[in-house]
Amino acid sequence: MDYRKKLMVKPGSDVSLRDIAPDFHGPIESKQAGKAELEDLLEKITPLQENLYAEKKHALLIVLQGIDAAGKDGVCWHVIRAMNPQGTYVASFKQPTEVEKQHDFLWRVHQRTPALGQVAVFNRSHYEDVLVARVHDLVPERVWSRRYRQINHFEEFLAENGVSIVKFFLYISKDEQLERFEKRLRDKDRQWKISASDYAEREHWDAYIEAYEAMLSQCSTEHAPWYVLPANHKWFRNLAAANIIFDTLKDMNITTPKPTVDIDEIYRRYHHAVHTSQDK
Amino acid sequence: MDYRKKLMVKPGSDVSLRDIAPDFHGPIESKQAGKAELEDLLEKITPLQENLYAEKKHALLIVLQGIDAAGKDGVCWHVIRAMNPQGTYVASFKQPTEVEKQHDFLWRVHQRTPALGQVAVFNRSHYEDVLVARVHDLVPERVWSRRYRQINHFEEFLAENGVSIVKFFLYISKDEQLERFEKRLRDKDRQWKISASDYAEREHWDAYIEAYEAMLSQCSTEHAPWYVLPANHKWFRNLAAANIIFDTLKDMNITTPKPTVDIDEIYRRYHHAVHTSQDK
Repeated sequence: MDYRKKLMVKPGSDVSLRDIAPDFHGPIESKQAGKAELEDLLEKITPLQENLYAEKKHALLIVLQGIDAAGKDGVCWHVIRAMNPQGTYVASFKQPTEVEKQHDFLWRVHQRTPALGQVAVFNRSHYEDVLVARVHDLVPERVWSRRYRQINHFEEFLAENGVSIVKFFLYISKDEQLERFEKRLRDKDRQWKISASDYAEREHWDAYIEAYEAMLSQCSTEHAPWYVLPANHKWFRNLAAANIIFDTLKDMNITTPKPTVDIDEIYRRYHHAVHTSQDK
Repeated sequence: MDYRKKLMVKPGSDVSLRDIAPDFHGPIESKQAGKAELEDLLEKITPLQENLYAEKKHALLIVLQGIDAAGKDGVCWHVIRAMNPQGTYVASFKQPTEVEKQHDFLWRVHQRTPALGQVAVFNRSHYEDVLVARVHDLVPERVWSRRYRQINHFEEFLAENGVSIVKFFLYISKDEQLERFEKRLRDKDRQWKISASDYAEREHWDAYIEAYEAMLSQCSTEHAPWYVLPANHKWFRNLAAANIIFDTLKDMNITTPKPTVDIDEIYRRYHHAVHTSQDK
């Protein structure tokens, strides 16, 4: 299966999440098969990221959005572990601070975009400003409605400066969310994660779906496509994310940097031996 | 073996690196046994870091120093992978920028110290300012010689603000370094890592050893101890680092945060069932 083709939101299309099954798991028959495939993929991602880091000509930005318990943390953990922590970081965007609120909504985000050579994962992002801000009327419609265009311009600018962007919307069903909350309730080590507002937000489920659909429809572009990852099955969510990241890295034409010194000369001078071409 | 006891630089002691064998590998008989033990340790580190992240009462700062090819990147990769990327980051300190040079030497470092809940790894650090700065006379002795005290005060301040600090000096022999350079030369994918200055710096080996000894002797403190990790064997270096990190985390008395809501009430209200105490 070509995961990108299958899961990408076609730029300019109108997304209806009702047409997408959150428990879709493609052609993979079992969790076990999916996990094995994931491991293979992660091994192939590792050297690509190493060269991305070495070459310092490209950057990769991975944006994660999804309702509570959709698995944003899980993707960070299970997919990003293929990458050397040296060149990779996760930026989490929570409620803006007082200082951040005195700036435009992209100000804090721009500070965390990846430098050339780096991979950044945004766990939540500037899209919160067209999601929670829209659902809870934090700003008037006049303000949030123009943000879609502003975001597209911002992402286009990043792309023109060497940043490849992939955006994952992790899509779980309302029932699946409740089940995951219940698992947290039953697990003493994770009960602290539960807050009353998790449940209160469920009252706004339909409004969130509408906001997600607007975000996906208006901000999936050639330079920064949105992918809807069916995420009821955690293993499929991880596999799909890894597939798309791998394909994206492949398309970036990352090469191993050339040596900056005369290898043969260094060899002769310091290692007291002739470095024959067979050794290479 | 108590790795901390064995490898810690006793505060106030005079370190002579000649007395330490870089190919020491403790009681572990084989690479294979060492690797198996490492995996066990990493599995025990994971939940401790999760609770550190959740509780947000402590932070951990891991400082890595060592000559070129000593394995700083390797420790980042092989030990830090036990931790959720969400709460963990690596800060690399290269040559200071023009702006950084216009500030005191701790300015850029302080910006990257871990917040409560976080683990930071410093790949090189403020110690470069008593290493390369001293060996190459980048500042007069009057300036670098007082930095040891300044560093101790800075680290004491961090410790008093909830940051546990462990500092690893990765110690390889001069021959081992040459062998590692040769391996890079022979590996097409890593030839780009070689620079002429790598070899030129070897001329200053003895001066570096002297600078390392001063750093270890003057800056190993109760609140921020230095550990000398014999690093000729990569697997032992990783195992020793993981051991010390694990023991340090254990000593931090990290607990699972208590739930902030009435679990039984949430259960009754939203999950339409009685949450009996057996379930917990």
